[in-house]
Amino acid sequence: MSFSIAKMAKDARKASFSVANLSTAQKDAALSAMAAKLVERTDLILEENERDLVAGKENGLTDAMIDRLRLTPERIQDLANALTEVTQLPDPVGAIADMKARPNGMQVGKMRIPLGVIAMIYESRPNVTAEAAALCLKSGNAVVLRGGKEALYSNLVIAKCLHEALVEQNIDPNAICVVPDTDRAVMNELMTLSDDIDLIIPRGGEGLIRFVTENSRIPVIQHFKGVCHLYVDAGADIQMGLDLLLNGKTQRTGVCNSLETLLVNQEIAEQFLPLAAKAMAEKGVKIHACERSIGYFENAEAATTEDWDAEYLALEIAVKVVDDFDASIEHLEQYSSGHTEVICTKDYARANEFVRRVNSAVVMVNASSRFSDGGQLGLGAEIGISTSKLHAYGPMGLESLTTQKFVVMGNGQIRS
Amino acid sequence: MSFSIAKMAKDARKASFSVANLSTAQKDAALSAMAAKLVERTDLILEENERDLVAGKENGLTDAMIDRLRLTPERIQDLANALTEVTQLPDPVGAIADMKARPNGMQVGKMRIPLGVIAMIYESRPNVTAEAAALCLKSGNAVVLRGGKEALYSNLVIAKCLHEALVEQNIDPNAICVVPDTDRAVMNELMTLSDDIDLIIPRGGEGLIRFVTENSRIPVIQHFKGVCHLYVDAGADIQMGLDLLLNGKTQRTGVCNSLETLLVNQEIAEQFLPLAAKAMAEKGVKIHACERSIGYFENAEAATTEDWDAEYLALEIAVKVVDDFDASIEHLEQYSSGHTEVICTKDYARANEFVRRVNSAVVMVNASSRFSDGGQLGLGAEIGISTSKLHAYGPMGLESLTTQKFVVMGNGQIRS
Repeated sequence: MSFSIAKMAKDARKASFSVANLSTAQKDAALSAMAAKLVERTDLILEENERDLVAGKENGLTDAMIDRLRLTPERIQDLANALTEVTQLPDPVGAIADMKARPNGMQVGKMRIPLGVIAMIYESRPNVTAEAAALCLKSGNAVVLRGGKEALYSNLVIAKCLHEALVEQNIDPNAICVVPDTDRAVMNELMTLSDDIDLIIPRGGEGLIRFVTENSRIPVIQHFKGVCHLYVDAGADIQMGLDLLLNGKTQRTGVCNSLETLLVNQEIAEQFLPLAAKAMAEKGVKIHACERSIGYFENAEAATTEDWDAEYLALEIAVKVVDDFDASIEHLEQYSSGHTEVICTKDYARANEFVRRVNSAVVMVNASSRFSDGGQLGLGAEIGISTSKLHAYGPMGLESLTTQKFVVMGNGQIRS
Repeated sequence: MSFSIAKMAKDARKASFSVANLSTAQKDAALSAMAAKLVERTDLILEENERDLVAGKENGLTDAMIDRLRLTPERIQDLANALTEVTQLPDPVGAIADMKARPNGMQVGKMRIPLGVIAMIYESRPNVTAEAAALCLKSGNAVVLRGGKEALYSNLVIAKCLHEALVEQNIDPNAICVVPDTDRAVMNELMTLSDDIDLIIPRGGEGLIRFVTENSRIPVIQHFKGVCHLYVDAGADIQMGLDLLLNGKTQRTGVCNSLETLLVNQEIAEQFLPLAAKAMAEKGVKIHACERSIGYFENAEAATTEDWDAEYLALEIAVKVVDDFDASIEHLEQYSSGHTEVICTKDYARANEFVRRVNSAVVMVNASSRFSDGGQLGLGAEIGISTSKLHAYGPMGLESLTTQKFVVMGNGQIRS
C-alpha cells in the first residue's frame, strides 16, 4: 500500500485533540520517556544513521554535510539531554489572561491553547526531528515532520523510538509523525492540507522557504534572512562599538544573527573607522565600503546596492557612513530584513527613538546581535525565527506554538 | 496615466513608517478631525452616494442592497460618532511587556508595534471604509481599502474627506488609501504585493474569502463561517437552555454568531425538546432533526450530513441528540467551524472540561452565542473575526492589528 500524506495529516489531527488536553505532568513524563528511549536505543539509531552516512558518501555529500548528518553516542546523549531540558520549560497551555467582568456580569478572558497540527519542513540535522517533536508535544500540538532525504533512515529510527515512548505513556503516537516519503510531490500535497495542518515552519535555505511560502495554502512562518545592522552613533563609546562589531561579525559567522552591515555616524567616522578597519583586518574580514568610508580600509571593495541587502554568512561586512541618526533609520526602513538591529550609543533620547522607530523583530541598545536567539533571550529552546510580523515575530519559543481563545463564563445572559 | 496598485502600496508602506510613530494624542486628534470632516462634507458625500444609488438601481441591486448602500445625514453622523468612539479606545502601540533581566544584565522585553500596511477587501457598506481606516490609524497602521464596485463613489468621497483631515493634521494622507479601480485584475495584483502589504483582511461572503485565501501571497485573516453550537447538558436549567436557544437563534439571524446547531444530551432530551419545539415553532424556525429528535418536532426535516456543516443564516436550525458529554465534544471536533460554542450546564466539572477541550475561538458557559463579537466581549470596535488560529483567533480589536518585537537594553554585553 502506498503512503498517503493526507491520511497521516488526518491521523495527526485526531491525535492533536488528545495531546491538547494532556496535563503538564503527562507531557513531561512523555518527554523524559522519549529521552530515555533514545539513549536505550543508541545502537539501533547508530545502525540506521550509518545507512544515511553510506548513502551520503555515495551521493557525494561534502565532509561538512556528512558531519552534520553523523550521530554518535555522545550526540545522542546530547539530544536526550535537550529533550529533558524541555521538561523544565513552563507549559504555556491553559493559562487564562485578562479575565474581566462585562457590565452584564459575564466574565470574559483569553485562554492559551495549542495551534493544533504543526508541520516542519527542514533540510538539516536529524536532531531537529527529536527537538521539534519535543517542543510541539510540550506545547500540546501534534507535529508532522518532513526532513531531508539524506537523513531519512535516521529520522525514521528516531521517530520509532519516540513512538515507543509515547505508546508506553498511553499517548497517541500519531502526535509525532515523520513523513517516510521524501518525494517532492508528497511535500507539495502536504502544503495543501489546510483542513488538517494549522501551520508550516520551514527551516533551511532561502530557496526552500520561498518555495514553501509561494506554494502553501497553509500559513507559513517566514524566515528569509538576517541582514543584521550595527549603527554606531555620534558620541558612542568607541571601545564598546568595536566590541559589538567584532563580536557580531566574527564570534560566529554563518548564522543569521551575525552582523552584515555597519552604519557609522559621520561625526564619529574619523575616530571609529580606523580602529574598526584594524580590528576587521586582524580577523581577515572582507570589507564592502561606501564612498565615504572606503578610504579607511585597505583592500576594501566599493559597495554596490546589492551589498546593502547581502547576507554574507561569512567574514564579510558592508560599511556605510550616514549623515545623522535619521539617515540610519531611513537606511533600515529600506534595507532591514526584519531580523535584528543594534544601536551603540550613549544618548538616552536616541536609544529610545531607535527602539521605538526600528521595526525589526529584535531591536537592541548596546548589546551584541549574537544574543538574538531564543535561548539567549530567555525563551528556552527555539523552534524557529520569524522575520514576518504575522502570528510571531523574532525567535519563537513554546508560546509561539499556541494561540488564545476567548472564554466566557456566564449565568444565563442573553442579548437584548 | 493609469492607476498603479503597486505604487499605491509603496506609498502606503512609506506612510506606515510615520504613522507608526505618531503619539496617541496625534492619532486621536486626527480621528476627531476625520469625524468632523465627514459631518462638514455631508452634502458632498450624499451627492456622490447618490451616483452609486442610481447606478445600483440601474444594475438591478435588491432593495436590501440599496438600503445598505444608502447614506443619509443621520448615518453620516453615526459614522462620525463611530470614529470619535475610536479615540476612546486604548492605544496598544508602544506598550512593553515582560521586561526581564538576563543573567548577563541585559534587559529583554517585548514592545507592541503596528503590523505596517493592512489591506481590507470588502463588499459591503461604505461605512466600512471610514471605520476600518479609523481602527488602522489608531493602531498605527497604514491601510489600503478595496471596497466593492457598487460603493465606489461613496468610498472615494469618504477617502477624500479623510485625506483632508489628515493633511490638516500634518499626517501623510497615504496612510489611508482607497483603491479607485475595482477591476479584478487590480485586486489580484494587490494580493501579490507582499513586500509592501503585511496582512489582508477580507470581509464578505465565503466565496470572496476563499478566493483571497487561495490566491494571496500575503497572510490572510480567514473567517469562513460561523456554525455556532449550543450544547444542553444533562441536568441543565431548562429555562436557561430555552433562553439561550431562543436568543441565539432568533434575536438576530443572518449574523455569524447566531446558533446553527442544537446538541442535546439524551438524558435531558425528553424534558427539553418538547419545550424547544414549541419555542421554535412560535418563531417559525425550520428544524433539521436527527433520528432521535425528529419525533419531538412538527414538520421537521430529517437532518443530513450537510446540516451539521450548515450556516443557515436564517430561521433554521439543526438538532441532534447526543449520548453524553463526550459525544458533544466529538461532534464539535468534527463539525466546529472554529467560531463560537456554548454549553448550558449546572455541572462544575463539565463546564470546565468544555472550556478546556473545545478549541473554537469563543467558548461560552451559560451565555448566548450572540455575545460573540468584539464590542460585546469588551474589545471596542471590531475589524473582523478570525476563525483560523494563526495570529488572531476570534473577534479582532486594535491589538490584533499589532505584533510584538523584542527589545534588548544592554550596556555593552557581548557573547562568549
